[in-house]
Amino acid sequence: MLENYSWKSASQIFRKKKVALVPVGSTEQHGPHLPLGTDFFIACALAESVARDTGAICAPVIPIGVSAHHKQFWGTVWVSPQTFRQYIYEIATSLEYHGIRRIIFVNGHGGNFPSLQEVSLNLRAENLYSVAYQWWTDPSVIELQRRLFKSKGSHAGAIETAMLLAIRPELVDTASYKEAAEGAAAEFGVTKFGAQLPVDTLEFSESGATLDPREATVEAGKQIFHTALESLKNLTHWLEKAKVDDLEPKAHKS
Amino acid sequence: MLENYSWKSASQIFRKKKVALVPVGSTEQHGPHLPLGTDFFIACALAESVARDTGAICAPVIPIGVSAHHKQFWGTVWVSPQTFRQYIYEIATSLEYHGIRRIIFVNGHGGNFPSLQEVSLNLRAENLYSVAYQWWTDPSVIELQRRLFKSKGSHAGAIETAMLLAIRPELVDTASYKEAAEGAAAEFGVTKFGAQLPVDTLEFSESGATLDPREATVEAGKQIFHTALESLKNLTHWLEKAKVDDLEPKAHKS
Amino acid sequence: MLENYSWKSASQIFRKKKVALVPVGSTEQHGPHLPLGTDFFIACALAESVARDTGAICAPVIPIGVSAHHKQFWGTVWVSPQTFRQYIYEIATSLEYHGIRRIIFVNGHGGNFPSLQEVSLNLRAENLYSVAYQWWTDPSVIELQRRLFKSKGSHAGAIETAMLLAIRPELVDTASYKEAAEGAAAEFGVTKFGAQLPVDTLEFSESGATLDPREATVEAGKQIFHTALESLKNLTHWLEKAKVDDLEPKAHKS
Amino acid sequence: MLENYSWKSASQIFRKKKVALVPVGSTEQHGPHLPLGTDFFIACALAESVARDTGAICAPVIPIGVSAHHKQFWGTVWVSPQTFRQYIYEIATSLEYHGIRRIIFVNGHGGNFPSLQEVSLNLRAENLYSVAYQWWTDPSVIELQRRLFKSKGSHAGAIETAMLLAIRPELVDTASYKEAAEGAAAEFGVTKFGAQLPVDTLEFSESGATLDPREATVEAGKQIFHTALESLKNLTHWLEKAKVDDLEPKAHKS
Amino acid sequence: MLENYSWKSASQIFRKKKVALVPVGSTEQHGPHLPLGTDFFIACALAESVARDTGAICAPVIPIGVSAHHKQFWGTVWVSPQTFRQYIYEIATSLEYHGIRRIIFVNGHGGNFPSLQEVSLNLRAENLYSVAYQWWTDPSVIELQRRLFKSKGSHAGAIETAMLLAIRPELVDTASYKEAAEGAAAEFGVTKFGAQLPVDTLEFSESGATLDPREATVEAGKQIFHTALESLKNLTHWLEKAKVDDLEPKAHKS
Amino acid sequence: MLENYSWKSASQIFRKKKVALVPVGSTEQHGPHLPLGTDFFIACALAESVARDTGAICAPVIPIGVSAHHKQFWGTVWVSPQTFRQYIYEIATSLEYHGIRRIIFVNGHGGNFPSLQEVSLNLRAENLYSVAYQWWTDPSVIELQRRLFKSKGSHAGAIETAMLLAIRPELVDTASYKEAAEGAAAEFGVTKFGAQLPVDTLEFSESGATLDPREATVEAGKQIFHTALESLKNLTHWLEKAKVDDLEPKAHKS
Repeated sequence: MLENYSWKSASQIFRKKKVALVPVGSTEQHGPHLPLGTDFFIACALAESVARDTGAICAPVIPIGVSAHHKQFWGTVWVSPQTFRQYIYEIATSLEYHGIRRIIFVNGHGGNFPSLQEVSLNLRAENLYSVAYQWWTDPSVIELQRRLFKSKGSHAGAIETAMLLAIRPELVDTASYKEAAEGAAAEFGVTKFGAQLPVDTLEFSESGATLDPREATVEAGKQIFHTALESLKNLTHWLEKAKVDDLEPKAHKS
Repeated sequence: MLENYSWKSASQIFRKKKVALVPVGSTEQHGPHLPLGTDFFIACALAESVARDTGAICAPVIPIGVSAHHKQFWGTVWVSPQTFRQYIYEIATSLEYHGIRRIIFVNGHGGNFPSLQEVSLNLRAENLYSVAYQWWTDPSVIELQRRLFKSKGSHAGAIETAMLLAIRPELVDTASYKEAAEGAAAEFGVTKFGAQLPVDTLEFSESGATLDPREATVEAGKQIFHTALESLKNLTHWLEKAKVDDLEPKAHKS
Repeated sequence: MLENYSWKSASQIFRKKKVALVPVGSTEQHGPHLPLGTDFFIACALAESVARDTGAICAPVIPIGVSAHHKQFWGTVWVSPQTFRQYIYEIATSLEYHGIRRIIFVNGHGGNFPSLQEVSLNLRAENLYSVAYQWWTDPSVIELQRRLFKSKGSHAGAIETAMLLAIRPELVDTASYKEAAEGAAAEFGVTKFGAQLPVDTLEFSESGATLDPREATVEAGKQIFHTALESLKNLTHWLEKAKVDDLEPKAHKS
Repeated sequence: MLENYSWKSASQIFRKKKVALVPVGSTEQHGPHLPLGTDFFIACALAESVARDTGAICAPVIPIGVSAHHKQFWGTVWVSPQTFRQYIYEIATSLEYHGIRRIIFVNGHGGNFPSLQEVSLNLRAENLYSVAYQWWTDPSVIELQRRLFKSKGSHAGAIETAMLLAIRPELVDTASYKEAAEGAAAEFGVTKFGAQLPVDTLEFSESGATLDPREATVEAGKQIFHTALESLKNLTHWLEKAKVDDLEPKAHKS
Repeated sequence: MLENYSWKSASQIFRKKKVALVPVGSTEQHGPHLPLGTDFFIACALAESVARDTGAICAPVIPIGVSAHHKQFWGTVWVSPQTFRQYIYEIATSLEYHGIRRIIFVNGHGGNFPSLQEVSLNLRAENLYSVAYQWWTDPSVIELQRRLFKSKGSHAGAIETAMLLAIRPELVDTASYKEAAEGAAAEFGVTKFGAQLPVDTLEFSESGATLDPREATVEAGKQIFHTALESLKNLTHWLEKAKVDDLEPKAHKS
Repeated sequence: MLENYSWKSASQIFRKKKVALVPVGSTEQHGPHLPLGTDFFIACALAESVARDTGAICAPVIPIGVSAHHKQFWGTVWVSPQTFRQYIYEIATSLEYHGIRRIIFVNGHGGNFPSLQEVSLNLRAENLYSVAYQWWTDPSVIELQRRLFKSKGSHAGAIETAMLLAIRPELVDTASYKEAAEGAAAEFGVTKFGAQLPVDTLEFSESGATLDPREATVEAGKQIFHTALESLKNLTHWLEKAKVDDLEPKAHKS
């Protein structure tokens, strides 16, 4: 959104608002039925909706993230976690130059999460408060998901497919649902004797998807989108209103 | 564009084509009349047009680059040259994982250029051939510019305003032309006794623009766009057809 | 354990075995009742037990990790995630110099986990297979925990206190249980509108503990230790026996 | 020059002067007729002349820079741009420790330029004002060049050969002029459809030179040297006299 | 030792004391007769003894350091000097968070020394005063060594073997003394025409030891340990009592 | 010297010789009587003499090194050890591009030594054999020093002053000898209870010198220079003739 403003019109928002949203996604395989940009399309749609509703600043979406574990699937583009963190960190500190010290990373891709957490802790040590929101780990979305679908997987499963149907239906290839479902894993990742193995997606999913996208509907997608939107709006309001003291790191125990 | 394909449909293009386009821009002030995203809008429009016409692969646009020198203007978002280089470098090597060893960075922002050149030299040492194309330094565009306009500045001047009128007319604030022109510099940068000073834009341009956007017209913009498109298409064809031997670094002199 | 061998006696194990265990912990607050070394004591005890039983190589324990979020509590010592990753990565590659390409990080501290995962993915790209085991996220331990205790928190809660009672009872200050429990959080971390905030422990726990350590008993600790030991032994056996093909990354999809 | 002073005699100059000159060059091929040290000889000669005339501080010349693109020619020695920048950056900050906050990089090698610009921007963010002067891009030198020579190339062409004839005639191998000219390029670099290719010198010049050195004369060299000297002296005076306010970065637009 | 305290009990020491000891060693070959952990066992024993006697804070021992030059001997584990420095540096700055600005690195391994010196200089620039003590280069230990033994080598020679006999006799393999002595070098390293060659230990010592461990006795070990202990205690007292002014770097000469 | 050759004449030496000399010094205070460039003047004089006599390749002298500990004395210019190492490392690998795998760093400054050793070990891991020679730690020079002078200090003491008298007499300020001697330290550095403190030179030497330069004579300087030259020539011959097998790292112990 910020990209659509001139510096002059942007100056109005920067002077009024304390919070900036930074949508972050990835360009990576999402099964044979969803587009490579799925994660950043959703992040962008959520962030822009909230920005429209709340007046928050919204940076352009960051389209490429931490996705090396999808690399065997055509078209996945990625950077290392280290480079991703640095890129994100500097975007945040450049926003701070304009007086913004409160940032919400609207994250569309789970592989980015540990890096966004690490960046957030580093930013906080510099008195910049950032927090990563991701829709599919939001408890209220999880609850809705349980009601809507029998199948569970998130990556390219019913829940993500539904989201795309809600925001970019023209990019969903329903004809590939079957192929997606038949090659899908029941869960994302492999656990062995209590340990999560360092595997690539291809090692547990032939199609790149987790579980069955066929349960997805436009209607379900809209409900999910709306539910996530509500959380994100509330988070934005909370951060906008929070007292500086509550955002600053606490002092050492006496 | 790649973001609109599933991995399955992407596999078709990757198998057929040798060249990928990577549009790269910035989010930075472009005077009071042009949007902050100007550079990446143009890069993206050019790259996608060429991809459509030639079948080349086109990565999602990189929206944030090397723009610290615009930082005093509201809304400019940037990363350091070093981080930008690393981000771009790794995007290129991830494309290589899918067999792509020929890349064109379609660059919309001059501040990115030295970094793109440095990355290109580094990539070539790893047998990845990349080249940065930028429309406003293309000799055929420069010639056209001379014919079209009296004023010369590029950044947010007549030529860039015309381009925006051609591709995103709704984002051009014609009401601010006067303000842009009155606060504009005649040239981008400051030279003192033969030396280019390390200045920020604000030190030579109060409005952030160079010269007079009022000469810009939709028609001129279309001509410029078309001229750049032709060059970029030719460059793409040349790179697609080039012999491997001509792209590899030469051996040491005997 | 390796530290107790001469190079000559070590040569026998290196020639026979494919797997090395690397215990990793932290030096950080664990409430008023548990010692700062809790995490590395447990990691070390588990790794050495498994090494004794299976003949696996066991590196000396790494005592300092990613604990900045405990920094307001006296005596917490930490390094940045980036430095931790590099330290661990190079320990792994130095083991590889002696022919070891299979490593289990026996992790005693949750804050290390994202970094160990990142290191494991990087090592795998160099054909070194490593996996991080952590006892308190092992499903069989979680199940046991549910049966043993009513309270849930892991960090310095009943489960960790029980573990210390089993392996280092002399370092557990039972007189401080009450203080620990009264200042404890019900959960580790703070979630707001679906987002995990980037908080330090002191922001949600005055004593540094999560939930009530008073349920802990030596007997419960022994059961937990034994359960974790079984998983880790099985994991070690599996990794020792695994086929090279199953450990190498898969090729690109054709 | 600084290298010839003791700390005690140096203390006199540091107390009186605000500006330090740092000559920077490269060790790289300059055709069959010019020495590998050409760039740093010229940078050093200019900087020392100005220092003598103005009393400015002059650091020892940095002899090795960014020259990998000449690597196929025997004897070229180089470092990466990144390492070069860091080396230069730290030299500048060590001068600052003695109170110097105004630096002129007297650059003899075009390949160093983007890095010197990047360093200058970084230094300025730390309130250290540096500027890179290079003689062959100085407009007054360019004008003189047009009057003196028909041929245009700079690298190892007439203009640079003339400079060497003026300052180090014994190192110019006039017997190799013909070989230089016959293998020379008309321009430095290769442009394709508007894009500057990431080529090494050997790809466009068999001898390593650009255009014809045979036009060079001692007299022309002296004129060029004198012209550059005047610019550099003026630049030094200007920087010495500049108001602090004019050198500090401007504040954010209100 | 710190690892044995809870944060609550640690708070007492941190409030009372200014100095922290950080024992640092390595995991590397020490001949066929001494354990791989020799260096960190000694560092730890010395530091803990001093901490007990003086009340100084003592961090957990760092077991892995700069030992790549021993890499051909089984079981040597190492990190690069650069990573070691960063790990140590951050441990020191985390101690500073608790108010500690005076640190003694109790070093058991010569290969760590240049890095500890470099770290100490860097820390001092941040007003953290650290100093590396190593027992075998302590003049009072050297003098004692001359009286006790005819042979001179330190690494795995008589002096180090004696130390181990004093603190960990069960880990000394006396049956391998002969093999150690026969394959030992007379000195650590190789000098050629005045220059110290960049060799690995294996290039000058087949057994990994320097000179004859057979002179070692428990009694000699105790004397050496006691002598080192006295120095280290004195150093600790001196640092605890030193005036801030004497520890801060001096100002620039006027 | 290399700087005086064209690439064409350089090609002759590169084809014939295996060894390159890289003189390395510093720009740092050397008492009130010696120039700031002392270390690099000596390194350069030695390296060039050997190159003339043996035909070895000789790179341009690196004038700025690791000298932060002299920073309080006017005119000292330095870089961090890390940056110095990287600069040197890349110079070495660029020489390797021309086929040179054997390098002698002719070091004039003790502060560079640990870094040169570290670089040499890193280079060797890439099959590039480098060794650092420094004249004042050469046993044959030390022996001569004992015979020539009563005083002992090296930095700016009799031995270094004598060297300068031999190679650059015009830069020795004999009138400042008395001031140098009166403010001199007896030794370079400060040791406390067996530990070398991380001090700057100013903390132990008011004049910057160690001991009495008044014993220095031109004649003594010539003897020292000649003695060092002999060692360095022998080292160069040895390295030129050494078998590849003797220079490569040894394999792991079987």
